[in-house]
Amino acid sequence: MTTILLDCDTGIDDALAILTAALSDEIDLVGVGCTWGNTDVDQAVRNTHHLLSMIGRADVPVARGAAGPLDGTTPTFSPHVHGDDGAGNVGDISHVPVVADESAAELLIRLSHEHPGTLHVVAVGPLTNLALALQADRSLPERVGHVTIMGGAALTPGNVTAAAEANIWHDPEAAQLVFEAPWEMTMVGLDVTMRSILTEEHRARLAAGGPVAQHCARILDYYFNFYTGITGRRCAGNHDALAVAVAAGLVPTTLSPVVHVEVDTSHGPSRGRTIADLRGMWADHPQVPGARHRVVLEIEPGFEDRMVDLILTADQ
Amino acid sequence: MTTILLDCDTGIDDALAILTAALSDEIDLVGVGCTWGNTDVDQAVRNTHHLLSMIGRADVPVARGAAGPLDGTTPTFSPHVHGDDGAGNVGDISHVPVVADESAAELLIRLSHEHPGTLHVVAVGPLTNLALALQADRSLPERVGHVTIMGGAALTPGNVTAAAEANIWHDPEAAQLVFEAPWEMTMVGLDVTMRSILTEEHRARLAAGGPVAQHCARILDYYFNFYTGITGRRCAGNHDALAVAVAAGLVPTTLSPVVHVEVDTSHGPSRGRTIADLRGMWADHPQVPGARHRVVLEIEPGFEDRMVDLILTADQ
Repeated sequence: MTTILLDCDTGIDDALAILTAALSDEIDLVGVGCTWGNTDVDQAVRNTHHLLSMIGRADVPVARGAAGPLDGTTPTFSPHVHGDDGAGNVGDISHVPVVADESAAELLIRLSHEHPGTLHVVAVGPLTNLALALQADRSLPERVGHVTIMGGAALTPGNVTAAAEANIWHDPEAAQLVFEAPWEMTMVGLDVTMRSILTEEHRARLAAGGPVAQHCARILDYYFNFYTGITGRRCAGNHDALAVAVAAGLVPTTLSPVVHVEVDTSHGPSRGRTIADLRGMWADHPQVPGARHRVVLEIEPGFEDRMVDLILTADQ
Repeated sequence: MTTILLDCDTGIDDALAILTAALSDEIDLVGVGCTWGNTDVDQAVRNTHHLLSMIGRADVPVARGAAGPLDGTTPTFSPHVHGDDGAGNVGDISHVPVVADESAAELLIRLSHEHPGTLHVVAVGPLTNLALALQADRSLPERVGHVTIMGGAALTPGNVTAAAEANIWHDPEAAQLVFEAPWEMTMVGLDVTMRSILTEEHRARLAAGGPVAQHCARILDYYFNFYTGITGRRCAGNHDALAVAVAAGLVPTTLSPVVHVEVDTSHGPSRGRTIADLRGMWADHPQVPGARHRVVLEIEPGFEDRMVDLILTADQ
């Protein structure tokens, strides 16, 4: 059983990550922090609480977090990818969420005290909330068991730019603070998430399920439309849920060297790049003294099928 | 037959590139420009002329080029990789080279007039000489048929830093000028050169040959020592000769999309990175309008065997 605090910018693929974390018997989901990114933070809160309500898990606290990046610049969102509502334009924008009376950073700090050494933070949006928590409490890493992020790209191009993946690109300064902090981290980046593909077959199985599964099928319809421009066919990378799955051991990794990762916080063309020092690749990745960043490069395939099975249980 | 001007910082693997270009029946080697990088420019000139003299090709003009990077900073060399003499500490430092009475940039411009539209420039060192030629004559790209470089890394780490490959890292500003210039370019980077491996078997075949082949075996001995720290075994990437081979069609490429490449000239952690916009990889690399940079990602194996065969002909 893995105790998980999820931090997300819900978001279509975030929705699947939330359902995975909330429905799996192997995960104790103790809270969800929200931030901006795929959509604005209020929409992310609404979508998150809506999903948890749909599956009878409104007991999980949902906290509102950062509305924009650390450096104070104006946040940008991705309606072309996730819809104006972060739910493929088929979300319930009338839903009134119940929001925790603490910020996402405060939720993280509180849960780190309640689950010292065992809390696994899984962050699948910009890393602003984690950075704010680190700034507020420098001792936080001592109490966090592990941090797994969906973000970055080690040996593949980015997606927002040729160099940068969206979650890191949204707030490189926050990401660098998170990579610098003295906790153990796992990076689930585009190297594996763009190779963990949700297909029309998966979507058809969801569409034939109950209301929760059907909701997933509808939001994926929008997501697949966007990805058709990326991949040439109707499908999508299963980004955020894969990070949850790796964190909880639902997906075995088959190549994940522990190396140094640095985030490019320059304002040059590589801004937001996760520079993973994988020079050891030519010698089968020898151990790197002092390294703390596990970069997932290969996983066992097949999680998407099991994820669909899991989501279908929500309506049973 | 490919008309080639080679620009190099000779250098152990440069030596093999020079021999490949000078010995192949399919290449008309019309000049060699020298620059600093693996060693200082004067040593590069000496090594280049020494090699050409050894094989009876002192007719090929050898021009001295830039002694350091465009931005005027102090050049750095790589004696730990190439020896203090750029020839594994077994070079002939008493050799007095015959040097052309024109600079490497002037040689390039002159040859572009003599072979308009057919000159293939193969640059396997820092790109300073090419940048200087572009600055001196903006019409140069109109007369150059193609530029192939050994340099950069698209989907692999760098070698000098986690981000940057040595030839680009030495002079990112020059490299960016070369990538920006309106000519067709092919980038033969670490993606393929670190997978084109010279082994002890190759070296043994050279050691059993005549004086030229034996010289190659001796310099490779030093190179293999360095690479043992990179790969865990005695071998080396066949960097520079591979660029010559790709340029002359001696090695078929099996995956080489034409995309946009930008050089990171920031002073951040990605300085010297070749940012290849390979986002089309998820859709089997659709054509990119306006792109001019062919990035070699996969080649047919087997060139190293043929290169050894070719070098052995020098002593026959």
